[in-house]
Amino acid sequence: MKSDIILLGHGSGGKLSHELLDKLIVPTLSGISQRDQNDAAVLAAQNGRLAFTTDSYVVDPIFFPGGNIGDLAIHGTVNDLAMAGSRPIAISVGLIIEEGLAINDLREILESMRAAARQAEVAIVTGDTKVVPRGKADKIFINTSGIGVIDHDLQISGSNAQVGDKILINGTIGDHGMAILASREGLQLESGITTDSAPLNSMVMRLVEQLGSQLHTLRDPTRGGVATTLKEIALQSRVEIILQETALPVNPAVSGACAILGLDPLFVANEGKLLAFVAPEAAGLALGIMQTHVYGKQAAIIGEVTSTAAGKVRLQTSIGGLRAIEMLAGEQLPRIC
Amino acid sequence: MKSDIILLGHGSGGKLSHELLDKLIVPTLSGISQRDQNDAAVLAAQNGRLAFTTDSYVVDPIFFPGGNIGDLAIHGTVNDLAMAGSRPIAISVGLIIEEGLAINDLREILESMRAAARQAEVAIVTGDTKVVPRGKADKIFINTSGIGVIDHDLQISGSNAQVGDKILINGTIGDHGMAILASREGLQLESGITTDSAPLNSMVMRLVEQLGSQLHTLRDPTRGGVATTLKEIALQSRVEIILQETALPVNPAVSGACAILGLDPLFVANEGKLLAFVAPEAAGLALGIMQTHVYGKQAAIIGEVTSTAAGKVRLQTSIGGLRAIEMLAGEQLPRIC
Repeated sequence: MKSDIILLGHGSGGKLSHELLDKLIVPTLSGISQRDQNDAAVLAAQNGRLAFTTDSYVVDPIFFPGGNIGDLAIHGTVNDLAMAGSRPIAISVGLIIEEGLAINDLREILESMRAAARQAEVAIVTGDTKVVPRGKADKIFINTSGIGVIDHDLQISGSNAQVGDKILINGTIGDHGMAILASREGLQLESGITTDSAPLNSMVMRLVEQLGSQLHTLRDPTRGGVATTLKEIALQSRVEIILQETALPVNPAVSGACAILGLDPLFVANEGKLLAFVAPEAAGLALGIMQTHVYGKQAAIIGEVTSTAAGKVRLQTSIGGLRAIEMLAGEQLPRIC
Repeated sequence: MKSDIILLGHGSGGKLSHELLDKLIVPTLSGISQRDQNDAAVLAAQNGRLAFTTDSYVVDPIFFPGGNIGDLAIHGTVNDLAMAGSRPIAISVGLIIEEGLAINDLREILESMRAAARQAEVAIVTGDTKVVPRGKADKIFINTSGIGVIDHDLQISGSNAQVGDKILINGTIGDHGMAILASREGLQLESGITTDSAPLNSMVMRLVEQLGSQLHTLRDPTRGGVATTLKEIALQSRVEIILQETALPVNPAVSGACAILGLDPLFVANEGKLLAFVAPEAAGLALGIMQTHVYGKQAAIIGEVTSTAAGKVRLQTSIGGLRAIEMLAGEQLPRIC
C-alpha cells in the first residue's frame, strides 16, 4: 500500500480502490482471485430453506477488551443465522471507512474478521468498500449480511415459545456491554471485563440435532439485553415468562461495574449468548449440550413460560418478590455494537 | 411517532427502537407482522445456484434530481444481482442514521425503497437500524444486500468476454454522476440532468432467455464509469477492447456539464446502465431487446473485443486516433453512490 492511511480516492472505484482491494481487503478476507471478482458472488445450489440476515456495526471504540468491530461483525451475523436454526454458509462485508483511518487498524480488523469466519466455518464471499470524508463517519462502520441453510423442518421462532418451556442461557450476562462501557470510561485495566463475543453456530447445531422439535425458540440477547429480548419473545408468542433472579449467571466484575454505573445487567448487551426455549423434558439435555460446549460452561436454566398471559415478563427476585420487566427505555448504552 | 427527528434512543434496541420499527420502518418496507420478526428471515428452498451481493450507499446529497439514497440502494443491489444473470428474490436493508435526521426525510426514503422494490419485484425481508450521535455520520447511510436465484447453467462473468464479442450499453453515459455533481454545485435547475438510477433485472432476464450462451459478460458501470468497468473486464478476461467514441450515447446536457467541470463522461458513474458482451451474431438481437425495453431506448453497440492483448482498452476517437484508457485515478467524484 502506498499510503498508510485511508484516502478519499480509496473509495473512488478507480486505481486506488483497486489497490486497496487487491493488496489488502480481498486477500485478507476471502482470497478470491481478481479473475473471479464479479458484482455478485455465485454460490452452489442448496438443499433446504434459506435464512437471510443483516446487521451494521457502529461500535465505539472499534477496539475493546477481547475483540474489535471486525470479529464482532462476523459473530453477530453468524449468530443471527444460527438463531433461525440454520447453518451459516456465506457472509458479505460492507465497509464504510472514514478518510484518515490507519491502514494498520484496517488490517487488524480485517484479520480478525478472517479468523472469526474461519472459526465459524463460514466463507466471506462478497463485499463493498466506501470512503467518506473526515468527520462524516467515525473511523469505520461494518455491515455484515449472511445466508444460512436450514436442512430440517423445525420451526424455531420467537413466536413458538410454549407454556411449560424452560428457558436456558449459555453463560453470564452483560459482559459485552460492560466491556465496551468500561473501555470508554477508562476502567478496563482494573475491571478485567472482556466481551463475550463468540460464534454460537456449532452449539446451535448440536441443540437442533439432539432436541429436534423440543427446541422452540432461540434468540441472542444483544441490544437491550436479556430483559428486552425476553419481552420481545413474550409478546411474539403471547405468553408470560417468569425469570429467576438467583439463577442468572453474572460475572462478579460485571455486577460490580453495573452497580458503580447504575446499570442493570439484565438490560446490558451480550454478543456470545443465546436464550433457548425448550420443552421441559428436554431441559436437562439442552443444559448438558451447552455446558460441554466451549461457549456454554456457565449455562443455566433461568426461567420458564408459565401461562398464556400475553406479553408479560416477571422477575422472581432473590427476596421473593415478583417484579415486572419491560423493554429498555431510552438509550442506556449507545453504540454498543 | 412521538418525535419528529431521530433520537439516539431509536438505536438502543429498547422501547424507542421498537416504536420506530413497528410504526415506520417495518410497515413501510415489508409489512412483516411483529409475530414473525426474528433475527433472520426464512426463505423457501430455491432451485438453482444463488447470487449474493452487498453495497453500502453514502451518496451526498441524499435527495437528488430523479431519486434519493433509498431507491438508489434498491436499484444498485438489484442490478448487481442481475449482472450475475440471477433473478433477485430477497433484499436486506441496514440503516445507519445520524441523530437528528428528520423523520419525514426517513419516511420519504423508506417509501422510495418500497416503491423501487415493488417495481423490481423483489421482497425486502430483513433489516437492521443503528443510530449514531450527531457528527458521527452524515444523515443516513444504507446498506442493501441481496440474494438472487440462477435457474440456468450460463457462466455470465467478467472473465468470460471473448474475442469477437460486441459490446452494448443500454443508453446514455454519465447521467447519475453528473446529476449528483450538478446538485451539489447548485446547477440542477438549469441543467435538467437527472439520475438514470433504475432496476435492470427485467431487461437482463430477457437477454438471458433469448441469447443463452451467446451472452458472455454483464456489468453495470457504476463508480469509475464505463472506462473503469471495461478496463476491469479486459483485465479479468485477458483481452483487448476497442471502444468507438462516436458510438457512445451521451445526453447533451451531461456532455455540456462535463465540459464545464473538466470531467470525462467515460469515467462518470451510472446507476441504470449495463454493459453486455455478446457473441457477434447475437448483437442485433441484444440491441433489439434493449431498445424495446423502457430502460434501453437509446441502447447502442459501442465497441468490440478485438484480440487477446491482455487488459488493454483503447478508444477510437472521432478524428481517427486510438487513445489508451486506464482506470479512474484518484477521486474524481466522492460519495456518488
